[in-house]
Amino acid sequence: MKIGIVGGTGDIGEGMAMRLAPLYDVIVGSREKEKAQASCECSIQSLQKRGTECSLVGVSNQVAVDDADIVILAIPFKNLTATLSGLNGFEDKVVVSPVNPMEKRDFFVFVPPPEGSAALLVQQMLPKSARVCSAFNTIAANKWRALDEEIAYSVPVCSDDNKAKQQVMEIVNHVSKLQAYDAGPLAVSAMVESLTPLLLNIARYNRMRDVGIQFK
Amino acid sequence: MKIGIVGGTGDIGEGMAMRLAPLYDVIVGSREKEKAQASCECSIQSLQKRGTECSLVGVSNQVAVDDADIVILAIPFKNLTATLSGLNGFEDKVVVSPVNPMEKRDFFVFVPPPEGSAALLVQQMLPKSARVCSAFNTIAANKWRALDEEIAYSVPVCSDDNKAKQQVMEIVNHVSKLQAYDAGPLAVSAMVESLTPLLLNIARYNRMRDVGIQFK
Repeated sequence: MKIGIVGGTGDIGEGMAMRLAPLYDVIVGSREKEKAQASCECSIQSLQKRGTECSLVGVSNQVAVDDADIVILAIPFKNLTATLSGLNGFEDKVVVSPVNPMEKRDFFVFVPPPEGSAALLVQQMLPKSARVCSAFNTIAANKWRALDEEIAYSVPVCSDDNKAKQQVMEIVNHVSKLQAYDAGPLAVSAMVESLTPLLLNIARYNRMRDVGIQFK
Repeated sequence: MKIGIVGGTGDIGEGMAMRLAPLYDVIVGSREKEKAQASCECSIQSLQKRGTECSLVGVSNQVAVDDADIVILAIPFKNLTATLSGLNGFEDKVVVSPVNPMEKRDFFVFVPPPEGSAALLVQQMLPKSARVCSAFNTIAANKWRALDEEIAYSVPVCSDDNKAKQQVMEIVNHVSKLQAYDAGPLAVSAMVESLTPLLLNIARYNRMRDVGIQFK
């Protein structure tokens, strides 16, 4: 299975690529192909040092979409509309949104777009046959990157496409100690996306780092 | 410290009273005083069977407000406005809202009032000197009631009044294995209240019972 990461050199994308590359063929996209290639070389070295075999190539965001079965949109909410507008070829692909629409004021606030959530905005922007899921919303960049630590969090997954949801939940369950939970249709993805600003506030007010959640 | 529970004979309130009564003076309120008294007798018997001493009296909702230092509004969202409209005397009291504005459609959806959250609605309805906190939002009625089981969940607490928040967090930390977390001001209480419909969906779609959360 080929996983493309749009924004794969960003804060979240880079660690995500390193966690996924030992398990799947990972195609890292970036606005500049060269940046993606450099990032991949670095990641491959990191993984090789650990004796981990991996499949990782750096390409443009468009090629990451074209060549993948599953596309993860590892981009900040503020770049979401512009990035998606410049890309095509999402027909029939599974598209994963870990995007959280939020703002930092004195504290973090969930500020969804008029569509109701980032995932619903993605669904509206992409062709109807794109199979949109939300997943990985609450995993902090530092946790993705800290390859020597397990990530033992729960990951709620939303989608209106049950097969796509099962596929994404399977991927989630392969990464470290992440555990996927079916959180329902895309209509309730706002409740998942609003977890992240909540966790950032919890971290801040309780002097913790990279807080995640477990469902029990 | 005297804790009044408005709606103390309801689904959440009854178990909450039994968990709190061994620790604090608990005043159970109900629309009908007789119902509160009957419920308290039952609860006292349950606790005595376990050899647990407790302080528990049943009164009207108004007396539960009048006689308490801290008032917990253990009422469903749909009754919130009507109940608060019929009560007074909240001046200077710490008022705890565990209320979650949600609807059950094909799945559970967070449906906040125009104020932004149930806790913000409470703040707007009560006198300015009332010290409103949100807490206990995600603890299921069954968990409150299952006295022989520990409840090992995280409890986010919001308030604009730091002293009130500290007081409520201390109470949370005394109940079973609950652990309180400062989740910020009341302005972000919507993110806490929307956890409950999320957890209800997780329970439903993953065939679990009474799902809670832990921050890690």
